[in-house]
Amino acid sequence: MVKNIDEKYMQMAIELAKKGAGAVNPNPMVGAVVVQDGKVIGTGYHKYFGGPHAEVYALEEASQNSKDLSNATIYVTLEPCSHYGKTPPCAEKIVKMGLKRCVIGSSDPNPKVAGKGVQILKNAGIEVYENILKSECDKINQVFFKYIMTKIPYFFLKCAITLDGKIATKTGNSKWITNEIAREKVQFYRNKFMGIMVGINTVMFDNPSLTARIENGINPYRIIIDPHFKTEKNYNIIKENSDEKTIIVTSKNNENSEKQLDFSENSKVKFIFLNGTKFSFKEILYMIGEIGIDSVLLEGGQSLISQAFKEDLIDAGEIFIANKILGDEKGKSFITGFDKKDMNEAVILKNVKHNVYGENIGMEFLQKNYN
Amino acid sequence: MVKNIDEKYMQMAIELAKKGAGAVNPNPMVGAVVVQDGKVIGTGYHKYFGGPHAEVYALEEASQNSKDLSNATIYVTLEPCSHYGKTPPCAEKIVKMGLKRCVIGSSDPNPKVAGKGVQILKNAGIEVYENILKSECDKINQVFFKYIMTKIPYFFLKCAITLDGKIATKTGNSKWITNEIAREKVQFYRNKFMGIMVGINTVMFDNPSLTARIENGINPYRIIIDPHFKTEKNYNIIKENSDEKTIIVTSKNNENSEKQLDFSENSKVKFIFLNGTKFSFKEILYMIGEIGIDSVLLEGGQSLISQAFKEDLIDAGEIFIANKILGDEKGKSFITGFDKKDMNEAVILKNVKHNVYGENIGMEFLQKNYN
Repeated sequence: MVKNIDEKYMQMAIELAKKGAGAVNPNPMVGAVVVQDGKVIGTGYHKYFGGPHAEVYALEEASQNSKDLSNATIYVTLEPCSHYGKTPPCAEKIVKMGLKRCVIGSSDPNPKVAGKGVQILKNAGIEVYENILKSECDKINQVFFKYIMTKIPYFFLKCAITLDGKIATKTGNSKWITNEIAREKVQFYRNKFMGIMVGINTVMFDNPSLTARIENGINPYRIIIDPHFKTEKNYNIIKENSDEKTIIVTSKNNENSEKQLDFSENSKVKFIFLNGTKFSFKEILYMIGEIGIDSVLLEGGQSLISQAFKEDLIDAGEIFIANKILGDEKGKSFITGFDKKDMNEAVILKNVKHNVYGENIGMEFLQKNYN
Repeated sequence: MVKNIDEKYMQMAIELAKKGAGAVNPNPMVGAVVVQDGKVIGTGYHKYFGGPHAEVYALEEASQNSKDLSNATIYVTLEPCSHYGKTPPCAEKIVKMGLKRCVIGSSDPNPKVAGKGVQILKNAGIEVYENILKSECDKINQVFFKYIMTKIPYFFLKCAITLDGKIATKTGNSKWITNEIAREKVQFYRNKFMGIMVGINTVMFDNPSLTARIENGINPYRIIIDPHFKTEKNYNIIKENSDEKTIIVTSKNNENSEKQLDFSENSKVKFIFLNGTKFSFKEILYMIGEIGIDSVLLEGGQSLISQAFKEDLIDAGEIFIANKILGDEKGKSFITGFDKKDMNEAVILKNVKHNVYGENIGMEFLQKNYN
């Protein structure tokens, strides 16, 4: 019974945490709920990057509603912090406010500090319950967990295909494969991840501007993988964006060329230079991570998707399948270049969930789990 | 209000009708309900080919429950028959039993008799209400409607593909693409349609026996499209089936060959002979219809599926999509041979519905509507 009550309030804390989506990166989403005598007397969530932690809001509100918190429980989706960062440590605040119990979902993924928050609480005599709805709590912070542990951005694939697996006709035409409902979901993803990645072919064929068309949404970084620096200034992705959030990943050969310097100065484009022209995807992601981008939405095309699967770098994704058939072998498949003789060798998408978008369907998957 | 009550009992009649699935072909599925003073006093459905009509069961039961039916309504999913066939006309039976109202779903699709049943009822002063839940009633008898109107079997596609649209690896390996739950549904389809059609390549690569593994299920006709008569007696489809329900569609060149005569005599295989070796799918279907098969499940492979789409002969189907990727352009696509420059030229699957089979998904579609 007690456990069910704990799960109930932890679920509430999870819902609060989710409100921070898109605004807290690369900080984690965290929610907190303070309960006393069966009543919620304080709630909070981490609202924006660098802002007060969820516990601070919840405890402040609780202290206004009750003078004595010695019988109160705080539910928090992530282990309270133990270090002095942008804010004082939450574990100490909980001790100072004199709460009785602390119920925790996820442990801190940072090996340097994991368990320290719990230790502070226990040393002060607070009852600590860990791993309550842990998998649900871990789930909302996969991006944060991966990035803090590996320094490599979370990598999410979005791809729209026909039933025969094509992303474009042989002439490169891809408008439109999926319906408007499915395309709305893409806007959601563009708002959810810090960066969007596309290959130069997609930029040349589709000429996208790659903005998140969501009210109050934050435009993501736009990352173009362009070894031979074919991007031109009249492309929408350059001319429609002057927010200094376009990044071109290209060969070192292009460094300090007249074109590159012009792009940097006049179009405010950032560059990542790599050796050669066949890049290791892992290296690309590492470099992107270095500039503080914690998550990347891979939007295509064939060459990048294929390489990402080959290097087994995709953490999760959604493949949108249209109720359409091209039936033309010359159409462009979303993936190519594998050599598979037996059906058992196929790449399996794991933890699949299906989302219905009218007559289209989305196959959402989760290849990796970070906790 | 009255309409809602009528729809309620019509829905009951539809559920009854469905109980005849797989047993009444090529007769229609029909359900009937007799209601008096707000009570159901008789129900019935068409149980087996050539058996009594749904109305007969419902009226007989009603007459046992009530001596006077002058205040009763009969709900029937299909217009009561007006002709003397294997049973006397139901329209006359309703008149004879003295009912007050008759509520009808679908009209009779046979142009020779459509409306005649209704006329008999009206002439006798019975109140007739037509088209109640008509589309639902039409839906359960699409096979019957098409076959009676066109003499061509209803043609349903079943196909299992990877996310990149492949039905086999380059070496022909196709076991297994979908999971067990999805494959169970295939057994359902094998029981639902009178015939199963496969190409000779599928027979050679997969060596299927094509039986319906459903308890009390009726084994379907197995139709092999085999222009060059490559089928051999040691194939499962021949050696595991001695029920005289295997049909080979082959070139006239093979007629009366030693092999053909041996197959006919000793393996009880039936033959359809056609001119040349590139067959018109429409002609194949017409010939199959001529021998009394009202519906065919197309199970593959690439060549037949592609041609069926090209001739626009597919009435409906379900494409099972696995959470698997081959990523090998040399793998076998489920469809090929089209020339599509623009995404707008893609074949659209209509009236799509999605069925979840664990991590696999089925896209069910309905291209044509018969009523």
